[in-house]
Amino acid sequence: MIRVTVWVEEQNVAKEAYGKGLAQYLAEALAVEDEVVCTAVYPEGGDMRLSEELLRNTDVLVWWAHCYHDQVPDSLALAIRQEVNAGMGAIFLHSAHPSKPFQALVGTGGALHWRESSDKELLWAVKPEHPILKGVANPLYLAEEETYFEPFDIPTPDELLQIGWFEGGEVFRSSVCYYRGKGRVFYFQPGHETFATYRNEEVLKLLKNAVKWAARRVEYQKPDSVWQEKRSTEIYF
Amino acid sequence: MIRVTVWVEEQNVAKEAYGKGLAQYLAEALAVEDEVVCTAVYPEGGDMRLSEELLRNTDVLVWWAHCYHDQVPDSLALAIRQEVNAGMGAIFLHSAHPSKPFQALVGTGGALHWRESSDKELLWAVKPEHPILKGVANPLYLAEEETYFEPFDIPTPDELLQIGWFEGGEVFRSSVCYYRGKGRVFYFQPGHETFATYRNEEVLKLLKNAVKWAARRVEYQKPDSVWQEKRSTEIYF
Amino acid sequence: MIRVTVWVEEQNVAKEAYGKGLAQYLAEALAVEDEVVCTAVYPEGGDMRLSEELLRNTDVLVWWAHCYHDQVPDSLALAIRQEVNAGMGAIFLHSAHPSKPFQALVGTGGALHWRESSDKELLWAVKPEHPILKGVANPLYLAEEETYFEPFDIPTPDELLQIGWFEGGEVFRSSVCYYRGKGRVFYFQPGHETFATYRNEEVLKLLKNAVKWAARRVEYQKPDSVWQEKRSTEIYF
Amino acid sequence: MIRVTVWVEEQNVAKEAYGKGLAQYLAEALAVEDEVVCTAVYPEGGDMRLSEELLRNTDVLVWWAHCYHDQVPDSLALAIRQEVNAGMGAIFLHSAHPSKPFQALVGTGGALHWRESSDKELLWAVKPEHPILKGVANPLYLAEEETYFEPFDIPTPDELLQIGWFEGGEVFRSSVCYYRGKGRVFYFQPGHETFATYRNEEVLKLLKNAVKWAARRVEYQKPDSVWQEKRSTEIYF
Repeated sequence: MIRVTVWVEEQNVAKEAYGKGLAQYLAEALAVEDEVVCTAVYPEGGDMRLSEELLRNTDVLVWWAHCYHDQVPDSLALAIRQEVNAGMGAIFLHSAHPSKPFQALVGTGGALHWRESSDKELLWAVKPEHPILKGVANPLYLAEEETYFEPFDIPTPDELLQIGWFEGGEVFRSSVCYYRGKGRVFYFQPGHETFATYRNEEVLKLLKNAVKWAARRVEYQKPDSVWQEKRSTEIYF
Repeated sequence: MIRVTVWVEEQNVAKEAYGKGLAQYLAEALAVEDEVVCTAVYPEGGDMRLSEELLRNTDVLVWWAHCYHDQVPDSLALAIRQEVNAGMGAIFLHSAHPSKPFQALVGTGGALHWRESSDKELLWAVKPEHPILKGVANPLYLAEEETYFEPFDIPTPDELLQIGWFEGGEVFRSSVCYYRGKGRVFYFQPGHETFATYRNEEVLKLLKNAVKWAARRVEYQKPDSVWQEKRSTEIYF
Repeated sequence: MIRVTVWVEEQNVAKEAYGKGLAQYLAEALAVEDEVVCTAVYPEGGDMRLSEELLRNTDVLVWWAHCYHDQVPDSLALAIRQEVNAGMGAIFLHSAHPSKPFQALVGTGGALHWRESSDKELLWAVKPEHPILKGVANPLYLAEEETYFEPFDIPTPDELLQIGWFEGGEVFRSSVCYYRGKGRVFYFQPGHETFATYRNEEVLKLLKNAVKWAARRVEYQKPDSVWQEKRSTEIYF
Repeated sequence: MIRVTVWVEEQNVAKEAYGKGLAQYLAEALAVEDEVVCTAVYPEGGDMRLSEELLRNTDVLVWWAHCYHDQVPDSLALAIRQEVNAGMGAIFLHSAHPSKPFQALVGTGGALHWRESSDKELLWAVKPEHPILKGVANPLYLAEEETYFEPFDIPTPDELLQIGWFEGGEVFRSSVCYYRGKGRVFYFQPGHETFATYRNEEVLKLLKNAVKWAARRVEYQKPDSVWQEKRSTEIYF
């Protein structure tokens, strides 16, 4: 069983597109019978509703944010980075690119160029054999998306999966993977709040694959124990 | 001084676009006073005019081919791979992607998807700080090019510099770098023979940068001596 | 079922260490009931006993060679590269580093430094979570091996799994992975013919993992069809 | 001119080995006439003596720390990450591997295994052609060092330069490079405070090379301006 926590920065974001809060929508859409169970979370209070306990019981954290990056405490971003280092997966969606937890994990600001638009987008597989792209249409066609384009301030991805083509003439590294400690990180560009991108069947297939790919692969250990320095007294030779 | 050898598979290719043979055109266009000297070569005879002596005196080999890949002997492809391993640079242009020397250097077939077209192309810098892109417009705009698109059967590039956007909806990893032994390899997608792509000032800037980047950095040694196994009798500890 | 073909350059190599030919020994040692079936092959005749038909029916080719690299025809090395590009796995053992098929796949000569020795070796996991290292002791201890050391003329590996430590003061990138087209390539340094390295239980665990990792993941297609250029007439936008 | 700021966590650390504070020693040792000027800094007060103004006037920050990582405010680690993203270089020495600024830049905890020792160490070049290794002995021999060993919890380095061999049987990725935004990051393992490692001529050559490699390559811009999102209204096609 994979326990997914979907965190969206605000209750009402994308309600028009999905008929309900985005976190609820995604939690329902990504749940796969008993195999994947999802919890929808909106921030409230100092821990933004991501208590130590919830993180400890999360195998994949899905993060969508746009307007309120600044309200996330640095300490929470750091706690997330440490949980990922200890084995939790993390999926960052769309405008989460300059979110504090993503920055903490990749080590750059994640800035990009953008244009307000309802451009057609085509996502082309560069690594079609990757498990995240299994069974997903290539190219993946979106009738409308906001335009994000290069340069994108990220480190060279450990794996570049898809490149996005936009009607206005732009390209973007739209699906990228990072390995950080015992955990896995995936960023996926589509998902502007005014479009119902996450209703697209191909996008849902891809995200369900991403949940499986990112899921915790090791038994839970507290970050500060799993990664504490290991002192050896043995001599190997 | 950088000694460039421009090899083009056939005398008459692209003559309409450049008013002269493509090898001559490129040789003249890439020469930079005393700094870069170029030799134009067309194949003839068993060594395709790339004698051991010429290769030994080449700091960067530029390769354009399209219709006659099969006529290049495997032994020449191998000799080129070994010279690159020993320090020679190699620049493969446009339809050289399935050429034997490129395949020998990257280890895959280089196949891609294509569409006969005169599409507009925009090349976007993914690594704008790379020396090959120094001073080059971003995006680099081409009024017409043949359409090449993903998936492109190459190993993950050591450096991905530019992504091409095509009017028909496609994308392509258009500028990629590989390090192979002591030598450097650059592939650049634009340059279909029916368009005068290599007259474009930005393309020329980029290619001149590529020549400098790829140029031999070590004194010449014969491949079979430079890379022969080194047997040691010293014990370090 | 995974069909493994173990090719060893000579019938009598390592007979003292294993009590039988190395190809037979490995074929028996790597077979896992019905899951993995192995064929032992020694070269003879023009195709070195690796006919087109055998390659087509091979999911993983294991290659051990030392003294007779030159006797392998370039055309066979090329055929192997193309089969790997089309999906066959390849595992190169010990002194196969300058073998023609390995060179054709990685694009360099594979030269290294070495010292005739019976050094103790310790192999340290750099990527302990990799499937090839699953359940394998870390460090993996070998009581005696021939000393191979850096620099090792290979492209930056797609994945570096283990680093070897040698008693004489040397280090080596001992386990490295490459992805080439639809196929996977693994190089593993231990296995000098005068030591019974492949009797070591940890080495056998690792090699069995490697067979599973490298095994063909796609239905067989002839290299020249799977990778032929794909011409499109569709316009995506 | 390259302006280097050498920050060491404590005034008295390594005084016995160098006859003066480590920051002063390194500042003097790394200064190269007018080409490189160095400032020695020890923490005091809330900004640990790394004011915004000093960082803005730093082309390369050198960081040595061991016992007081926790005293560095998260906000300072974050500010350093942002300055590196905007172009400042950063060199982390020895026990700086779990320092907050290093973690913020690479995205992992940097934990490793260690043994208190005065082991002989040999550092072997894996990428001998890299500018940081120019003119440096290979292997680089150290008569005594503390033993650090794998696994080392870092992301796959953008460039792996040297592997350390230790007398006790261990190996370590001792010299690694990362690119983060417009800035460059180098980690170098040798330098335990009880040994005079930084008196070693080869180590000094390497560190001077590292200063040149890491130095700011772009004109200074404030991190929050250089990396702010760029909104476009232009349509390219």
